[in-house]
Amino acid sequence: MKKGNMLIAQSGGPSMVINQSLAGAVLAARDSKAVGKIYGALHGIQGILDATFIDLRKESRATLEAVADTPSSALGSVRRKPTAEDCQAIFRVLRKLDIRYFFYIGGNDSAETVHIINEEAVKDGYGISCFHIPKTIDNDLRENDHTPGFGSAARFVACAVKGDDLDNRALGGVKIDVIMGRNAGFLTAASALARQDDDDGPHLIYLPERPFSVEKFVKDVKAAMKKNGRCVVAVSEGIADKDGMPILAKFTHETDSHGNVQLSGTGALGDLLAKVVKEQAGIKRVRADTFGYLQRSFPGMASASDAKEARLAGVAAVQAAVNDEMSSGSVAIRRKPSKKYGVTFEVVPLRNVARETRHMPDAFINKAGNGVTPAFIEYARPLVGALPPCARFAQLRRG
Amino acid sequence: MKKGNMLIAQSGGPSMVINQSLAGAVLAARDSKAVGKIYGALHGIQGILDATFIDLRKESRATLEAVADTPSSALGSVRRKPTAEDCQAIFRVLRKLDIRYFFYIGGNDSAETVHIINEEAVKDGYGISCFHIPKTIDNDLRENDHTPGFGSAARFVACAVKGDDLDNRALGGVKIDVIMGRNAGFLTAASALARQDDDDGPHLIYLPERPFSVEKFVKDVKAAMKKNGRCVVAVSEGIADKDGMPILAKFTHETDSHGNVQLSGTGALGDLLAKVVKEQAGIKRVRADTFGYLQRSFPGMASASDAKEARLAGVAAVQAAVNDEMSSGSVAIRRKPSKKYGVTFEVVPLRNVARETRHMPDAFINKAGNGVTPAFIEYARPLVGALPPCARFAQLRRG
Repeated sequence: MKKGNMLIAQSGGPSMVINQSLAGAVLAARDSKAVGKIYGALHGIQGILDATFIDLRKESRATLEAVADTPSSALGSVRRKPTAEDCQAIFRVLRKLDIRYFFYIGGNDSAETVHIINEEAVKDGYGISCFHIPKTIDNDLRENDHTPGFGSAARFVACAVKGDDLDNRALGGVKIDVIMGRNAGFLTAASALARQDDDDGPHLIYLPERPFSVEKFVKDVKAAMKKNGRCVVAVSEGIADKDGMPILAKFTHETDSHGNVQLSGTGALGDLLAKVVKEQAGIKRVRADTFGYLQRSFPGMASASDAKEARLAGVAAVQAAVNDEMSSGSVAIRRKPSKKYGVTFEVVPLRNVARETRHMPDAFINKAGNGVTPAFIEYARPLVGALPPCARFAQLRRG
Repeated sequence: MKKGNMLIAQSGGPSMVINQSLAGAVLAARDSKAVGKIYGALHGIQGILDATFIDLRKESRATLEAVADTPSSALGSVRRKPTAEDCQAIFRVLRKLDIRYFFYIGGNDSAETVHIINEEAVKDGYGISCFHIPKTIDNDLRENDHTPGFGSAARFVACAVKGDDLDNRALGGVKIDVIMGRNAGFLTAASALARQDDDDGPHLIYLPERPFSVEKFVKDVKAAMKKNGRCVVAVSEGIADKDGMPILAKFTHETDSHGNVQLSGTGALGDLLAKVVKEQAGIKRVRADTFGYLQRSFPGMASASDAKEARLAGVAAVQAAVNDEMSSGSVAIRRKPSKKYGVTFEVVPLRNVARETRHMPDAFINKAGNGVTPAFIEYARPLVGALPPCARFAQLRRG
């Protein structure tokens, strides 16, 4: 058994359960005789470069458990892709602290960072185990059936759209909800879990996996208005036209020559689509909400299975490094083939997860490209768990 | 004891507990020997004009209880101020159905509607009891210590800002959260309940009760960035300059000559403020979210005390009409002077509640006009209840 110090950090967008993975890894490490000091670097690799650390042996078990239940990245986060120079600097710090175990919790960019550091170590003949622990609300990591963080964000989205659909039922018109997901539509698709009755919204769902046509969109909204007398639309912030140009970029370019295109943290896409519906479909009451950062950091909204799996992903990474004496890898979640929902954790090569993302499979998207299939619902339901039940008067329910 | 049929309806913006008031009133009426038929009009007075009703004796108790726990207006809602002509038409329908008890759940505009119908009835010598049951997430009804719907919306806002503050802590920069409340700042002020530690956000709170100055705002943000290295801002959608001109209207006028000013259901104000901070404070990472309709209709977010009081407000209205044989009024919530939180319900004249709104008292707003006082926290805490606890590492907490 290799003995040495450990460093762990968090990277990319926060999630509601990223601290479960942190707590899982730290508690597993504290239980292992192979691990000496446990450094927590602040703000991902930035904290390694700046040598800003906390001692994760000093925090009480009660604090670790309370932090695990808290959304967002407790060690801070960063969006920094390391240059070759950064890598050398990181590597010098790791050597100086005699780090033999390195864990990085994040998405595909974070996996890429671990991959680079691992390759440098191999080149230099420095014996360090480099592991990536998966996290992304976008659910777009390859090799994974789903990723820690997705189930909880999907739970927020499904609850929000469920309430919003009731709101729209009360006052009518068109409601457009813009949901996170730059390249993958899983989170936007999760809005479909809001439906209880056949005439419940969302009535239309637009994903980045299918080209978005403004003409088709307006036609779809008119048809839904005709059928239901109202319309709730879930749309991904990442929708793009048939040439791959983000709709927001296109419209922003057309209407405003100043600004940069920014998908999250702005209400621009929702406002643009609302304007289109008002003008081109002639509907008076059109409203748009952009769910924004609430989707990934809302306290008390974590899905139970997501929280549990995030914890176990952290444990699995440490166990692979310490007990299995593997030198590197990324923990991947696989779904058991059994009818009853369950998962297993496997360690896969870093290069399989790094950089590139995965998309919604065709089987999850309807033929018209404006909704999801029952196969998606079946896939997503156990990740999200039961939602608060909502009821309507019997006399107001259709058939 | 007067005997007769009853009509009840819901009006204005939905809330998470407006169906509690409906269930409370209907169940109390079903228990009373004075009430015959119980009509539920769909979409407020529109349903009276259109003669679209459901029979609220037909719904099972289980359904009523399930509907009570469901957000948004189960009978549908409307934003229609009745004209003199409408009133005559409404009145004809009420007479035709032999309605002797009329209950309307809503805000100050709804109280105005009840007031007008009641005055018409008195003029005509038609014996009908007209009651307003309070509801508004804005918390701006006169005569009330607070209003049903506020506590739950405030709970959503406090949770959202709590998570958002953790998100901002992880990635830094400035985050602007735009919160509902056209004339009254109570809901925006409730963001302050998110704070656990001294350096927690929101660091700045802007309310419609104080004139908003862009220069002062930029200066405040710079100072907060200097102090905390990051800044979370809660701002009411209704902020206006010293001449009472809404900031959104002002900016929209300056940058876009097409559109009407619309406060909710658009991300424009947040985006405008973010642009100002980027340009005038020279801060790179600036994000804005507009909480939008999620604030009033999120399932599973109701505050326990809010749900209970909304139910009792419905019961109190029916009891006043049936047992006390009062001819009209609005149910008002009064806070008991006792140290332990508690409320009583009183029936007040309709004209005291109708039309005009109330604002945040001066004692709830800090001197600088960019935050709230401990007196506000003390006022709001019992209405919202305990929030999900969030934890940080001991080594990262100040002092």
